[in-house]
Amino acid sequence: MNTSAIFHRSTDNFCYALNKNDIVINIKTDYDIKEVILCHGDPFSAGIMGGNDRFKYLKSRFTDRKRLKDHLFWSITVTPEFKRLAYFFILTDFDGNTFYLLEDNFYTPDEFKSYRGRYQYFYLPWMNPADIFETPGWVNRTIWYQIFIDRFCNGNPELNPRDVKPWGDAKKTVRYSDYYGGDLPGITSKLDYLAELGITGLYLTPVCKGRSNHKYDTASYSRIDPHFGTDQDMITLVSTAHKHGIKIMMDGVFNHSGALFKPWKDVLKNGPESRYFNWFIINKWPFQSCTPFNTNAKSGNYYTFGFFDDMPKLNTNNPEVIRYILKICKSWITKYDIDGLRLDVAGEISHVLCKALRRELKSLKPDFYIIGELWHDSTPWLRGDEYDAVMNYPFQDSINDFWMDSRKTSVDLEYAINRCYSLYMKQVNDVLFNLLDSHDTMRLATRLKNISRFYQQLVILFTMPGTVCIYYGTEIAMEGGGDPDCRRCMPWTDIENGVYADRISTIKSLISIRKSLPAARSDNYRFNIIENEPRILSYTKYDDNGNALHIILNCSDNDYPFESPGKKIIFAKFYKNYIIKPNGFLIY
Amino acid sequence: MNTSAIFHRSTDNFCYALNKNDIVINIKTDYDIKEVILCHGDPFSAGIMGGNDRFKYLKSRFTDRKRLKDHLFWSITVTPEFKRLAYFFILTDFDGNTFYLLEDNFYTPDEFKSYRGRYQYFYLPWMNPADIFETPGWVNRTIWYQIFIDRFCNGNPELNPRDVKPWGDAKKTVRYSDYYGGDLPGITSKLDYLAELGITGLYLTPVCKGRSNHKYDTASYSRIDPHFGTDQDMITLVSTAHKHGIKIMMDGVFNHSGALFKPWKDVLKNGPESRYFNWFIINKWPFQSCTPFNTNAKSGNYYTFGFFDDMPKLNTNNPEVIRYILKICKSWITKYDIDGLRLDVAGEISHVLCKALRRELKSLKPDFYIIGELWHDSTPWLRGDEYDAVMNYPFQDSINDFWMDSRKTSVDLEYAINRCYSLYMKQVNDVLFNLLDSHDTMRLATRLKNISRFYQQLVILFTMPGTVCIYYGTEIAMEGGGDPDCRRCMPWTDIENGVYADRISTIKSLISIRKSLPAARSDNYRFNIIENEPRILSYTKYDDNGNALHIILNCSDNDYPFESPGKKIIFAKFYKNYIIKPNGFLIY
Repeated sequence: MNTSAIFHRSTDNFCYALNKNDIVINIKTDYDIKEVILCHGDPFSAGIMGGNDRFKYLKSRFTDRKRLKDHLFWSITVTPEFKRLAYFFILTDFDGNTFYLLEDNFYTPDEFKSYRGRYQYFYLPWMNPADIFETPGWVNRTIWYQIFIDRFCNGNPELNPRDVKPWGDAKKTVRYSDYYGGDLPGITSKLDYLAELGITGLYLTPVCKGRSNHKYDTASYSRIDPHFGTDQDMITLVSTAHKHGIKIMMDGVFNHSGALFKPWKDVLKNGPESRYFNWFIINKWPFQSCTPFNTNAKSGNYYTFGFFDDMPKLNTNNPEVIRYILKICKSWITKYDIDGLRLDVAGEISHVLCKALRRELKSLKPDFYIIGELWHDSTPWLRGDEYDAVMNYPFQDSINDFWMDSRKTSVDLEYAINRCYSLYMKQVNDVLFNLLDSHDTMRLATRLKNISRFYQQLVILFTMPGTVCIYYGTEIAMEGGGDPDCRRCMPWTDIENGVYADRISTIKSLISIRKSLPAARSDNYRFNIIENEPRILSYTKYDDNGNALHIILNCSDNDYPFESPGKKIIFAKFYKNYIIKPNGFLIY
Repeated sequence: MNTSAIFHRSTDNFCYALNKNDIVINIKTDYDIKEVILCHGDPFSAGIMGGNDRFKYLKSRFTDRKRLKDHLFWSITVTPEFKRLAYFFILTDFDGNTFYLLEDNFYTPDEFKSYRGRYQYFYLPWMNPADIFETPGWVNRTIWYQIFIDRFCNGNPELNPRDVKPWGDAKKTVRYSDYYGGDLPGITSKLDYLAELGITGLYLTPVCKGRSNHKYDTASYSRIDPHFGTDQDMITLVSTAHKHGIKIMMDGVFNHSGALFKPWKDVLKNGPESRYFNWFIINKWPFQSCTPFNTNAKSGNYYTFGFFDDMPKLNTNNPEVIRYILKICKSWITKYDIDGLRLDVAGEISHVLCKALRRELKSLKPDFYIIGELWHDSTPWLRGDEYDAVMNYPFQDSINDFWMDSRKTSVDLEYAINRCYSLYMKQVNDVLFNLLDSHDTMRLATRLKNISRFYQQLVILFTMPGTVCIYYGTEIAMEGGGDPDCRRCMPWTDIENGVYADRISTIKSLISIRKSLPAARSDNYRFNIIENEPRILSYTKYDDNGNALHIILNCSDNDYPFESPGKKIIFAKFYKNYIIKPNGFLIY
């Protein structure tokens, strides 16, 4: 038995309370393991704490098993009668060897029986309701739509900045100081369109006053950017959206401010005498003047986002700064009635701030949704007392790798997807913010250079655990390279003239599948690996009642004959005469 | 390469900020790995976030390596210039195979070079000072002495309960309602004795009013037990202790109250009408009368500690209860000026309470020491925002197993000890509460039935990372079986008559070694495995300046010839003519 491959720890994704009654236990092993049994009982039965008696245990066989590249990931759920659990594992490999795994060691059955010390079981001492990780129930079925405000829709030309550019493509050559006039009234005016599309959540890039067109360089956290609208415009947007059944998520940029943020300007003027000096992290004073391309950041004179001199890091360790940010975020809820917050550069702000944010915002609005912009395994932020979820970039990468490298097989993708969904608790997986592109990346249609493959990836997006977010323009397969080319203007005239009717109808179908079929949203999936067909992706989703949804994508260069077994075809492209063409798919 | 044995995650003991400048990275591998290299750099150098460029990395070879039973545990410390770190590993096995380990996967060097996606590095995004786990600096050098108050010293007979028993052995047959008159003035009167012994910290079992002699069944959290003394007696004890250079740690029993706690009595009387009904966790009302051996607990009528009906669990999920407990603990600091708090049944109270406790108590007294009574891997409580440390029972078990089972070898002990010190961050290891017995266990002298072995285990206790706690009476090798026999009365007359002078002198020597030699306290140790001598324990400790301290214990049944290499012998027993006798030891 490859014992050194076996990993379990009574925390995080390996052992957690799923709700007030159930505990999920997961364990990783090598492929040599045939069977895993969980032995569990109450720690106080038969006096486990006080004496040498062994606790009375129940045996449960693990039935759920997923393949990771180098591991099997076994999962089971148990329901402890008295909210506390002691447990250990019995592992048997294909050669018939059996080991007992306790917290301290592996034991042969004989060693286990003859051991005279204090058994070091694994424990979850008590399921305190206050510690159970609850994520908002509405998120899993939400269809998000990310809007880059300056490029979505100009609803009130009176708000236009000077020198606004004519509404158009806003391609590569635009500068961060080029404005196209998109604004909040514009979004409000398109709520009918979005609701008709099936959208139920908007994620807005920053709305607060900032210097550039993207507004990630905040000048004031308490003012709507005057080119986007007024407080009243924001209130109207949110309330109208709510009437349309659409939730609103704002972008919170608290890792750094922009150069025009008043406290920073005060620091630049007054140095250590400024009452805001400790709002930032300044190592050396005086420093060079603060311009985007000066070298204060590289010299470590003060800390910044990346190496941008004009984005000084806010000191989120300073209790005064924490109180300030809390006040701002709470005001966004009370004033605008928003439903969620996405934290920008979410890994760099202090955990102390994250924890305080969750405590205070959830007490104001219990089903508020908080996510972080994190690009990697985000376990330290997803323990139930900080974010509800993160932007699921590892998921995006997993899919991207499969399409970018035709040597990758369905097993590779299965491994990668399984990895994404074995990192966190189920509560997180249900609301992971899945996206295939954003204002920070090349657009999906451009990355793939092929609209059929574009729809194949969207099929996966719409049938995986988590919540779905599409970037504005995805419904028309808008193109665009890396930032800033991915921020083109929405071609409303063409849309209204029906140029994209087919594309919009395709997205509507996917949205409808996601919304109407619980299996599409569920976290219960299984890959079906087809021998000798490494580029055929096939997986099945199950809802809580066992209803199955089957998805097959032909990512090979050849026709794939497939006779759907008498069941109703829900949606398909390039499927005819029992053949899935290259780049086609079938959902049934 | 056994890739499935390799484990790293950017959190907990595997990746953490040690202080404001340094990050510790640890990784577990199988024994087939010859070399591990850490490649690390700044995530924003060469545009890792924005583009496809690889970040500029430094290579560092891991030099610190410890053996676990099925793993090697490799450790390295790096100092990121800009407080943020991206990293990956290069692993080479003894066959010369090399793999790059990124967060998502293993890559061959060729795969790594030709990869065109977004590299999924490991990250520690930012070292926020507010998140860095700081434990109190004074604890590592503290010598703790645990006092079971009713049996330590009777300083004021006026406080005696009715029917107090004559001062004596208080052996097995005593009941929890038998009192011997030990009290706070008694402890104060022995501070000279304790200071002379070398003690610098007292851990007191509960001092608040309770029904039984152990007081773990609290009747009032705001009153000193009238048989132990008054508020003034407690204030005097702490202030006099401080004058002796002795810190005081109280026992906080907040998992459950006793049956005489007023809110519980109110619930028993008024049921759901009581304003305290939600202070407890009651599933069914009315229930049977609350007596120690009724079956309310077993029936789940309300939740309790273990299955003791008269120890109802406090609902530490209820914000009102949390506020109450915070108020009590803060008053203990402001009123008595205590230095630490040990939380009883620490795994069963809510994390929400633990976090609030740390926040509020540390803001009142920044170097306050908070530990939990946890008997197993306590990672979820040791992330920097709850306890500083836990009672190190796994360490106790590791040592005990070696002496209880003569087939165990020095390698087994090395594995077990290494496991204990690979679970947590260094900051925790430095203040882990190491103990060999307590009021909850059989006394060490009785467990071993051999005073030489007793001293051998104490030698280990006094030379391992963490902080040392001896149970009252250990200085005279007091005997006692399991609870309540381990709670005998201190034989002051014999002590004063010099009956135990030799034993006391031995403990003083050990305390003096611990206090005077930083190497004895350091976390830098290395086992020296001696071939064909499985029962000779030999290890070396190093202080920050590289000064070595060598410890050798003969746990075999045979003489062990050992010529100490010209160095000064610091302490030894049964070492003569270059021979360590069975059960002897040598420190040099």
